[in-house]
Amino acid sequence: MVNQEPCTYIIFGATGNLSSTKLLPALYHLEVANRLPTGTMILAVGRRTWNRDKWIAEVEKMLVNKARNGLNAEIFAQFKQRLYYFEGNLTQESMYAEMREFINKDSVFPQNIAFYMSIRPAEFGNVVQHLSQNQLLDEEHGWKRVVVEKPFGSDLESAYALHQRFSKYLKEEQIYRIDHYLGKGTVQNVLVFRFANLMLEPLWNRNYIDHVQITHSEMLGVEQRADYYDNAGAMRDMIQSHLLQLLTLVAMEPPISMEAESLRDEKVKVLKSIRPITPNTVHAQTCRAQYMAGMINKQMVRGYLQEDKIPQNSVTETYAAVKLFIDNWRWAGVPFYLRTGKRLKESQSMISICFKSPPQQFFRPNQIKKMDPNWVLLGIQPTESIRAEVTIKEPGLEMNTRQITLDAGFRKEDDVAKDAYEELLLDVIKGDRSLFLRYDEVEYAWKIVDPILRVWATERDYIPTYQAGSWGPKESRRLFEKETQSWRHSLDPE
Amino acid sequence: MVNQEPCTYIIFGATGNLSSTKLLPALYHLEVANRLPTGTMILAVGRRTWNRDKWIAEVEKMLVNKARNGLNAEIFAQFKQRLYYFEGNLTQESMYAEMREFINKDSVFPQNIAFYMSIRPAEFGNVVQHLSQNQLLDEEHGWKRVVVEKPFGSDLESAYALHQRFSKYLKEEQIYRIDHYLGKGTVQNVLVFRFANLMLEPLWNRNYIDHVQITHSEMLGVEQRADYYDNAGAMRDMIQSHLLQLLTLVAMEPPISMEAESLRDEKVKVLKSIRPITPNTVHAQTCRAQYMAGMINKQMVRGYLQEDKIPQNSVTETYAAVKLFIDNWRWAGVPFYLRTGKRLKESQSMISICFKSPPQQFFRPNQIKKMDPNWVLLGIQPTESIRAEVTIKEPGLEMNTRQITLDAGFRKEDDVAKDAYEELLLDVIKGDRSLFLRYDEVEYAWKIVDPILRVWATERDYIPTYQAGSWGPKESRRLFEKETQSWRHSLDPE
Repeated sequence: MVNQEPCTYIIFGATGNLSSTKLLPALYHLEVANRLPTGTMILAVGRRTWNRDKWIAEVEKMLVNKARNGLNAEIFAQFKQRLYYFEGNLTQESMYAEMREFINKDSVFPQNIAFYMSIRPAEFGNVVQHLSQNQLLDEEHGWKRVVVEKPFGSDLESAYALHQRFSKYLKEEQIYRIDHYLGKGTVQNVLVFRFANLMLEPLWNRNYIDHVQITHSEMLGVEQRADYYDNAGAMRDMIQSHLLQLLTLVAMEPPISMEAESLRDEKVKVLKSIRPITPNTVHAQTCRAQYMAGMINKQMVRGYLQEDKIPQNSVTETYAAVKLFIDNWRWAGVPFYLRTGKRLKESQSMISICFKSPPQQFFRPNQIKKMDPNWVLLGIQPTESIRAEVTIKEPGLEMNTRQITLDAGFRKEDDVAKDAYEELLLDVIKGDRSLFLRYDEVEYAWKIVDPILRVWATERDYIPTYQAGSWGPKESRRLFEKETQSWRHSLDPE
Repeated sequence: MVNQEPCTYIIFGATGNLSSTKLLPALYHLEVANRLPTGTMILAVGRRTWNRDKWIAEVEKMLVNKARNGLNAEIFAQFKQRLYYFEGNLTQESMYAEMREFINKDSVFPQNIAFYMSIRPAEFGNVVQHLSQNQLLDEEHGWKRVVVEKPFGSDLESAYALHQRFSKYLKEEQIYRIDHYLGKGTVQNVLVFRFANLMLEPLWNRNYIDHVQITHSEMLGVEQRADYYDNAGAMRDMIQSHLLQLLTLVAMEPPISMEAESLRDEKVKVLKSIRPITPNTVHAQTCRAQYMAGMINKQMVRGYLQEDKIPQNSVTETYAAVKLFIDNWRWAGVPFYLRTGKRLKESQSMISICFKSPPQQFFRPNQIKKMDPNWVLLGIQPTESIRAEVTIKEPGLEMNTRQITLDAGFRKEDDVAKDAYEELLLDVIKGDRSLFLRYDEVEYAWKIVDPILRVWATERDYIPTYQAGSWGPKESRRLFEKETQSWRHSLDPE
């Protein structure tokens, strides 16, 4: 048990997919790790006419496949004592008073309450309003926190509208905007790598870095998310949120401390410093495309337009790349290339730092061939890793050089992979907001992406394509500033 | 064949140990690699009454054990055509005229001549004088080069006297002072590592480096070299020569080019910048000791005083450590710790760069424990390698950090190890002096070491000891500037 006040986790949409595949397994694993404060309760809210026993049986079913090392009967016996079920329809106003009754009549439920909104974003506003009107956000007898998943709006305007609505009923400190892609591990890895190693900070600027690439590629297609995805597209789904977050971590100044507000202040400063993309520069700075049929893992896969529920005339991008400039003292002139796509050749997330060439090329074999630059590669998914690429002299009588790699994986063999949700659900209980997004982060990220989306929205009759299983459209090359720059597709240089 | 004028390699002391174990195998391997210019001849000069056939037979015997992949009959048939023998006593003046006759009567010997002095240093001066007086150093019809092995004097005065003698008969450009420990590979590895990687140069100074350690440790004892060694000691044998050379490579400014004089100019600048050690600072900045009996590789070995031919009252140091400061803009205040010893726990040569700690310790677990600093380790012997030690976040829910290593060996599996002599003998033919020492390098190295030797020479009644198989005397710890500094004994941190 952590030395922490207990709380009630109320999950709206508890019978849904996220809840069963992520939230309840994460809470169970926190139980395994003995990290849930004594007295913590988990109240599932759903429309199904289930009772507590049925719910416990359902949770057990969910966990059987998800529990690492199998479901432990003893631990589950303990865990199930925390589980309660409340049948209710979120759209019915009366539900909220009934739920309040339910919670208050039984002293088993701590008055610190985290509401997890595992529901459609369109419902967020109404639910929060009802909670407030039924005094469920009242912090007199304990904290009240609301956890929401992205998307936080679908553009600047809708994000702002949602924020306005939230602000009526919630203080900013009560809102936990979760970005599970950016699990605690990833964020902290980047921060530790940058700020616990003296070797890096002196190099981490425009004097030495040629450009930065941030890549999130997926082999998966649109899968079951066609409805959402066809309205969103890659720019909204990945770049506006996750990749811009990674960019802030890579580019930010050293914060005052690792405390949430200090970190978020620095992240917002980076977003504010990004040179705005205008309608005139959209073409030069971005690239979008949609996947066609192709081979993934030696299997033929459908094109995007052949996927279930995708309209035949969709021009939604499944690939998006953007070149950004951070116009501040540290990064002026250094291009940051962000790129994401579905049905690409490999699944990986990687931050690739390309250094400039040495000012004198002492060792190059001839006047034409330039020597390879240094790279630092931070692998995020599927494995956390660091690689540095350096040049050494090739053994032998001739003065030839070659590039070697200094490699390290992060995990020791006995390290257990944690799901990002475990860490994040625990942070909600602890009140540690450092990994959650503050509204201004969301707002400035939309400001960067909005002009691009607006131009793309006017180009409804054509989108470039790329073959599934490739590394995306060739057109994306036009983003590069120099002949020497090119996409760093994988750990191994092309 | 290299596109190079042929030459005659004349080896004085050809029947001796160095010649048979190093020089002739190296020349043979150059033949294997097809690197000897057509027409290159090798003339052995020795006192034994051998003829050419006998010599060729002797060389064949030497090579049988030394040839990598075994002696190749076809290549040896080619190689032996280069081999000649001249019987002569270097101390007899008449020998030189006879040798000149021998060379000139037969047009087989190219007039470019490299004289390899595989003889006692005390003979260097006389031999050069005789060569000169017999017009054998006359460069009218081809270059004449003299290759000498260290020691180049036994102190500043004797080095200067030798230099004065050489200078009468030779231009500086004709003198090739060989340091086989510093083979081409090592020197070029350090230079390439420093100057082909943009990532390093910005870090390579007093702002970021806490201290530097340069270690050469040997498991061997004094072996067959008792006579020489007991007069020399570790400071003369290793630090004055090899380790100070390594220090210059680590510390020097980027040279104008990789050409010999530019490199040597920069190396001398480093030596000139080293803060002189005075009689008063010898104790604080140096440590000497002698090995006692102990266990090496689970075998009991004798102490130094029990070795054959070592006087019972010898206080010759078999271990020496010295702390040096380079008082220039780049290195002011950064201690360089040099250390060498025989009968130590491991055999290795390594340059270890310890970086400072980050200015803010964001991630340390508590106020007491400091985080580990970054290290860059350049392994020289037994294997060439690079290691960088960086801090990452430990996977898991807690914010713990750990040190990981980014490692790389230099050799690919198909890389053949070259002996330093191959490269150096070839450089003599090519006239590439970049790996040979210029006199001022020798002179300034003696200036650094001389005051230490003079103080030690007055302390004839006691020398600290250390156990064979240990890492040397505990007293050596007193050299360190700070509590946080300690000897980096091996690739793995203590």
